[in-house]
Amino acid sequence: MEEVHIAQTEALRNFCIEALIHLRAPDGDAAIIADSMVEADLRGVGTHGVLRLPGYARMLREGNMNPQPSIKVIQESNSTAVLDVDNAVGNLAAARAMELAISKARDASIGVITVRNSTHCGALACYTTMAIEKDMIGFMTSNGPPIVPAYGGKTRCFSTNPWSFGIPAGEELPIVLDMATTVAAGGKIRVASIKGEKIPLDWALDKDGVPTDDPVKVMSGGFYQWIGGPKGYGLAVVTDVLAGILSGGGFGQMLAPLKEPYGSNLIRQGHFVAALNIEAFMPLTEFTGRVDQMIRGLKASERINSMEEIRLPGERGLKMKEERLKSGIPLISQVWDELKNLRKELNISSDF
Amino acid sequence: MEEVHIAQTEALRNFCIEALIHLRAPDGDAAIIADSMVEADLRGVGTHGVLRLPGYARMLREGNMNPQPSIKVIQESNSTAVLDVDNAVGNLAAARAMELAISKARDASIGVITVRNSTHCGALACYTTMAIEKDMIGFMTSNGPPIVPAYGGKTRCFSTNPWSFGIPAGEELPIVLDMATTVAAGGKIRVASIKGEKIPLDWALDKDGVPTDDPVKVMSGGFYQWIGGPKGYGLAVVTDVLAGILSGGGFGQMLAPLKEPYGSNLIRQGHFVAALNIEAFMPLTEFTGRVDQMIRGLKASERINSMEEIRLPGERGLKMKEERLKSGIPLISQVWDELKNLRKELNISSDF
Repeated sequence: MEEVHIAQTEALRNFCIEALIHLRAPDGDAAIIADSMVEADLRGVGTHGVLRLPGYARMLREGNMNPQPSIKVIQESNSTAVLDVDNAVGNLAAARAMELAISKARDASIGVITVRNSTHCGALACYTTMAIEKDMIGFMTSNGPPIVPAYGGKTRCFSTNPWSFGIPAGEELPIVLDMATTVAAGGKIRVASIKGEKIPLDWALDKDGVPTDDPVKVMSGGFYQWIGGPKGYGLAVVTDVLAGILSGGGFGQMLAPLKEPYGSNLIRQGHFVAALNIEAFMPLTEFTGRVDQMIRGLKASERINSMEEIRLPGERGLKMKEERLKSGIPLISQVWDELKNLRKELNISSDF
Repeated sequence: MEEVHIAQTEALRNFCIEALIHLRAPDGDAAIIADSMVEADLRGVGTHGVLRLPGYARMLREGNMNPQPSIKVIQESNSTAVLDVDNAVGNLAAARAMELAISKARDASIGVITVRNSTHCGALACYTTMAIEKDMIGFMTSNGPPIVPAYGGKTRCFSTNPWSFGIPAGEELPIVLDMATTVAAGGKIRVASIKGEKIPLDWALDKDGVPTDDPVKVMSGGFYQWIGGPKGYGLAVVTDVLAGILSGGGFGQMLAPLKEPYGSNLIRQGHFVAALNIEAFMPLTEFTGRVDQMIRGLKASERINSMEEIRLPGERGLKMKEERLKSGIPLISQVWDELKNLRKELNISSDF
């Protein structure tokens, strides 16, 4: 087993902020980006946490991410806006878009923002949670580098196009769905290949498009599978329409492929972000009381023998966050070392 | 193989309208309901087509569907409304809600309508297509009778909670996604059991919650499986929040179970319907041109050997509609006979 180091949340957050400031991000922007990275780690979504910082640092230095973007409103109405975020770090772009969606939803019942010319934005749950904190329902989807083919195809056209919803509850934990539209993400397949384990047949295809249980075959030219075959593919098409086409940004194979260095390529990721004002439909406490009632009903279900517990979307992550705020965030040696190297390289005083 | 009869579209539509008028629906409402039933059959979604008419007739006569509902606006803003549809036939309720969403989106960029106290509403594609016809993006999801448990559970809490998106294209066919959040619907499992065939292991569980390839075990107390396990379950939770909780209507096990007679039970289905005005984001022709470009890109993909063609969501149904408008709608004997019996029973002059 790989060695694990424990970082304390505040120290890790301060380190990320200082690193981003060294990389020329304004103080406030650095805090927003750092918050969303650390939040992902707190919830156990390590693939979208501080592990990304060294890559972001490279992109910020090489011009593929812009540390001081000039975010422009291209078109706007009371309830909608199209933003060109000028190659901003996606985490910042998504947070700004959700702030705007929430502010529009306050007056116009709903706010829908599309974002063009963005980059990798971390875990969508961070932004739909912003809506929860303002007593609203949040929704976000994002396109990304083309790695998954259309259903039945072998040409890489889509990212794992994630969907996230944030739904406030009353006394219960809020509901935070954040899912790729593919069955399994790359991380799990890589881990199985390292451990020499087989993977379930519905996770991925080999290079010829045949379902395979061999993770090595997936990693040498194979493809992820969509949830429910044509259904997950259908959701991914909708993502590319909402986040890519409707933002006026990149879609399909226009986006930069998932491999560094990006060179002079713009990454051209797009987001679709929405906030829904619950008070436009019913008093907030009535809504949250009904959500609590639904959650309790589901958790009281009779269980399949092998299941310990019925969980709601996001529950595991929120409980992990509570735990990790006390005990710290575990980082594997490789990530730990890369961050320590970055610290030296940027000559940062904060440590973690 | 079961015997098949061919009905001509116009004759079938006129028969449905006359039947619904005999069942006390106003002329205009009868036409809306008939249109959506025939539309489902034209697109090959027979499970949501005229096959439903005899059941609707029973519910209309027994008071579980209201032929002359008084649809009330409970709460309203420029961009949102909550409707109580007074036990209307769901097909009518959904069409009225989408009309209202479209009209709000015309002025307010977006319209979001929740609907309470509705009933079975047929194929969601019929309503998201209404948005396409007005050059908008349509979205709809609906809850329904509790038949599928939470992920890991054995208590029936949700319907197969479908999601539909309608997206206009330019010269290409529009994109119409309409999918259950479960892998397979009941119809396919029933057909496999009749034919004595096995089903894929990811379609359903037996009564103990163990994946099974035996359709008979599914039909005797088993359960459908969610697409992507916890992911499809997560989408179904979101549906119940949007269509059930946010409409102020029934959710979870409050809804009447899927078995007739319903007796004095209200069905209490809820819908969530939205229309998004494309012009709030970019000129329509720019949008449809980009959608065409995406469609052509996907269709030009290199294909897996076993695949004839890369399809877009809804493409097969729209091509089938074109064909069936010429050749007629095939109905299996059982459906044909039930409709002919209904014709006699209601003493209807129209034939098909």
